[in-house]
Amino acid sequence: YKDMQDLEFTIENKKLYILQTRNGKRTAQAALNIAVDLVNEGLITKEEAILRVEPNSLDQLLHPNFDKKQLENAELITKGLAASPGAASGKMYFHAKDIVEAAEKGEKVILVRQETSPEDIEGMVVAEGILTARGGMTSHAAVVARGMGKCCVAGASEVHVDEISGTLKCRDLVLKEGDVISIDGSTGNIYVGDIEKVEPKLTGNFGLFMQWVDEVRTLGVRTNADTPRDAKQALDFGAEGIGLTRTEHMFFDEKRIPVVREMILSSNIEQRQKALDKIRPMQEEDFYEIYKTMEGRPVTVRLLDPPLHEFLPTNKEDIETLAKEMNLTFEQVYDKVAELQEVNPMLGHRGCRLAITYPEIYRMQARAIISAAIRVIDEGIHMVPEIMIPLVGDKKELQYVKNEIIEEINLVFEETGKVIKYLVGTMIEVPRAALMAGEIAEEAEFFSFGTNDMTQMTFGFSRDDAGKFLTEYTDKKIYKYDPFTSIDTKGVGELVKLAVKNGKETRPEIHLGICGEHGGEPLSIEFFHNIGLDYVSCSPFRVPIARLAAAQARVKELNK
Amino acid sequence: YKDMQDLEFTIENKKLYILQTRNGKRTAQAALNIAVDLVNEGLITKEEAILRVEPNSLDQLLHPNFDKKQLENAELITKGLAASPGAASGKMYFHAKDIVEAAEKGEKVILVRQETSPEDIEGMVVAEGILTARGGMTSHAAVVARGMGKCCVAGASEVHVDEISGTLKCRDLVLKEGDVISIDGSTGNIYVGDIEKVEPKLTGNFGLFMQWVDEVRTLGVRTNADTPRDAKQALDFGAEGIGLTRTEHMFFDEKRIPVVREMILSSNIEQRQKALDKIRPMQEEDFYEIYKTMEGRPVTVRLLDPPLHEFLPTNKEDIETLAKEMNLTFEQVYDKVAELQEVNPMLGHRGCRLAITYPEIYRMQARAIISAAIRVIDEGIHMVPEIMIPLVGDKKELQYVKNEIIEEINLVFEETGKVIKYLVGTMIEVPRAALMAGEIAEEAEFFSFGTNDMTQMTFGFSRDDAGKFLTEYTDKKIYKYDPFTSIDTKGVGELVKLAVKNGKETRPEIHLGICGEHGGEPLSIEFFHNIGLDYVSCSPFRVPIARLAAAQARVKELNK
Ligand SMILES: [Mg+2]
Ligand SMILES: [Mg+2]
Repeated sequence: YKDMQDLEFTIENKKLYILQTRNGKRTAQAALNIAVDLVNEGLITKEEAILRVEPNSLDQLLHPNFDKKQLENAELITKGLAASPGAASGKMYFHAKDIVEAAEKGEKVILVRQETSPEDIEGMVVAEGILTARGGMTSHAAVVARGMGKCCVAGASEVHVDEISGTLKCRDLVLKEGDVISIDGSTGNIYVGDIEKVEPKLTGNFGLFMQWVDEVRTLGVRTNADTPRDAKQALDFGAEGIGLTRTEHMFFDEKRIPVVREMILSSNIEQRQKALDKIRPMQEEDFYEIYKTMEGRPVTVRLLDPPLHEFLPTNKEDIETLAKEMNLTFEQVYDKVAELQEVNPMLGHRGCRLAITYPEIYRMQARAIISAAIRVIDEGIHMVPEIMIPLVGDKKELQYVKNEIIEEINLVFEETGKVIKYLVGTMIEVPRAALMAGEIAEEAEFFSFGTNDMTQMTFGFSRDDAGKFLTEYTDKKIYKYDPFTSIDTKGVGELVKLAVKNGKETRPEIHLGICGEHGGEPLSIEFFHNIGLDYVSCSPFRVPIARLAAAQARVKELNK
Repeated sequence: YKDMQDLEFTIENKKLYILQTRNGKRTAQAALNIAVDLVNEGLITKEEAILRVEPNSLDQLLHPNFDKKQLENAELITKGLAASPGAASGKMYFHAKDIVEAAEKGEKVILVRQETSPEDIEGMVVAEGILTARGGMTSHAAVVARGMGKCCVAGASEVHVDEISGTLKCRDLVLKEGDVISIDGSTGNIYVGDIEKVEPKLTGNFGLFMQWVDEVRTLGVRTNADTPRDAKQALDFGAEGIGLTRTEHMFFDEKRIPVVREMILSSNIEQRQKALDKIRPMQEEDFYEIYKTMEGRPVTVRLLDPPLHEFLPTNKEDIETLAKEMNLTFEQVYDKVAELQEVNPMLGHRGCRLAITYPEIYRMQARAIISAAIRVIDEGIHMVPEIMIPLVGDKKELQYVKNEIIEEINLVFEETGKVIKYLVGTMIEVPRAALMAGEIAEEAEFFSFGTNDMTQMTFGFSRDDAGKFLTEYTDKKIYKYDPFTSIDTKGVGELVKLAVKNGKETRPEIHLGICGEHGGEPLSIEFFHNIGLDYVSCSPFRVPIARLAAAQARVKELNK
């Protein structure tokens, strides 16, 4: 059997009857240790060992744990289900909207809900961890948290959550919004207050096993990271570069949002340029720090993507405050907010469409990217910055935006007297871009597939709204998987394949990656390996999972 | 030259110098008369004659005019540009939102604006006619109105429009919102009050010419019509059937909306069924009247498409009124409205997704369609009703909805003891449906391409929002045409072609049509002819244009 066995047997009349044997169930650590042992004993090959460990199970090994010493003195509230591994501390918030706001202010936060639903996704994304009072190991909170590699304690039945008054009650204890708790997703324990954490050790059998994984796999694994901290985390997990740095998260920073708003509220190009001039050095600093962290590995920076109204307040009080800050009347700000409002923001004035209207925004960003790269190169790090243009649908559109960027970069070269190599590429996420990939490749040095947006547009499913009806589709077996979780190989996947084929025909050396969330999901990774992408890019905690999934895909391919 | 010539000549020293000759410019009526004369004189063939008339120019011949006698006594206000032919009377409204509300109440309305912009489209759609104070023959109002075959007077410079106070001033005259005016898009005249209209005569040379057109063309021309009145109009213009009857317009009817709201606010299936039972006879009556008008020609009815929140009020006062009407608390209605709100309604819970959640809605509609058909068949009209399911993205999804419908239809057959033939087909509008058309055709007896929605999703352009940036794209020559006006042959068109090919492979006898607005645009019609669709479907006033465009496409094909 060459694997650990669960054996059932009986002895009757001194005779041994083997009733049943099957591969034993085990924890990730056990599976990994057994696989490594079997290789060391010469019973199986490294390739076979690689197939023995479920990629998603690695998640159990990657997360921090609470410091043992501190834990002894911690005040335990109660216990729930250990739904998704890891340890997290933070202020409690009861609504997605509130937690997003708190996280934007830089707070460490825990999302607490009676149970979660798809409308809570945004809140889950920003949370350190998630706690629910109801639901089991396959509840929404548990499944989504595991998908995100995020700590979760679910179904803590002694806990009573009152979302309206913002309180958590457990027997005599009453905590309210903003109070700090700690949760352990590996044990299910819930504690009062903050507890120090220790990082996981990725050495020993894990290190050896992952070394075999890297020897076998041919698909690259990069990470999506917007901060040096995330970049560092991903490097520790074996990322080979950054496939996606989103620049909008930097715009949302509390200290910067006033300048961003100043830029948006500008009534002419001079004012806008003035505001952009203030943002530029901050962006340059962001990129510089990330480049330094990545030590010459590839870093793909995506230029501004969301619609501008996302940066403006919508309620009366905030508009009033902003108007005062900006020395404008309430009406002026209100009118701008109203003007920017959209019926379907997902399909609105965003991505490179912003740069068709306001080329100066992308010019500022291109300048920051190149200036930062020149600095780290001056410090002796060899690197080639990659500039990625989102939401392109046509070659001419890319051409227009690219020309603006190149003009600005050439100005930097003139001013500094330095010339460096850089790449300009595009996201392929609008279905039309996939259909036109042959032409678009004439202008793009790389493609990165944005399979989140492509799934939205190819299905016509708004991710923000589909939660309400998508479960009916999986319940009724119309779709086997939620297409936002595992790539829809027949529809969206066909578009990706077509774009790969046509892109390569035009430009055989084109770099091909994927930076949608599918980049961290094993089934999707196998698909991307098989259609010939160069790399996947995923969130830091998915990186080891992606490495193993990529290796498994390669082994399966070799076994064919 | 075999055509009317504009000749420039000079006589010098008794010698005649022909300086220049070119095909003469002419009105539609003149072009048509000349073409018919040249055929009658044996100078050109019918096919050549067909190519001599610009399809869009026919629009001039199709519209009503004011009654000459009544016009003598009419009070002329002023004159603007004759921007789009026709004669219209109605109450003035100054904002798209207000005019849409008024039109939903059944009022005849005229949209009056300083100038129009893409945000006014919805208002233009429902208006009898459009009046602007600014802008020339190529202004937004003029171009869009001509595209819609709708009467428009533009650039009436003596008129001062105050949109905020809702007044129109012209010298001493002051009119306000709700006052009735009449406008003549063929002369530019603007009058106070209502004036009777006479319908155009489609006989004589026009009739003969269109007869040739119909002999030559192979592409069918149907119409989009939601009412017997529109259906009759389209028949007069030569429509061969209805390609799209939208059922939501019937839901919006003032007398029905309370029942529709009752259905939406139901908290369980019994309540919902009770409300649906009230709607059903009204829908049956709608379909019965349309079937009678169409006298056995094919009629495709599309099942409910828009998201349910479109039927609910959004402002506080209306919610209060509704709550009282429905015997519910304000909170109950408000919560439902909030629950149904969507971030991207275009990509939300709509189309057949409604029937995955509430199959009883489509069952009610299927029952109404079949019951109405049985009635007209009983009256001796031979007909085969066509049931169209919108927004399908997968074969299994169609299967699920179709099974529900067929079950309900079989109940009708059992109850009535009558069995009739009917077709069940689907819209192909979600990009994924085009990609999966081969499989979907296993369940669909016809495809109707919804190129409006397909353009939105393939480009990732929300039609409601793209107006703000799309002009930049045409100005900067990134896109040659607005893709919502003329089909994007390279992107959206490729998807349509793919679906045609794969659909036919699965089901060679499949019916193929298109019911997006491109169905009435000559360039698009040529494309649809060339890729082998069976018919186009367009608004009544575009029908003769589509017939001519289809004939020209066929002639060009034969000339190749
Ligand atoms: Mg995207
Ligand atoms: Mg549609």
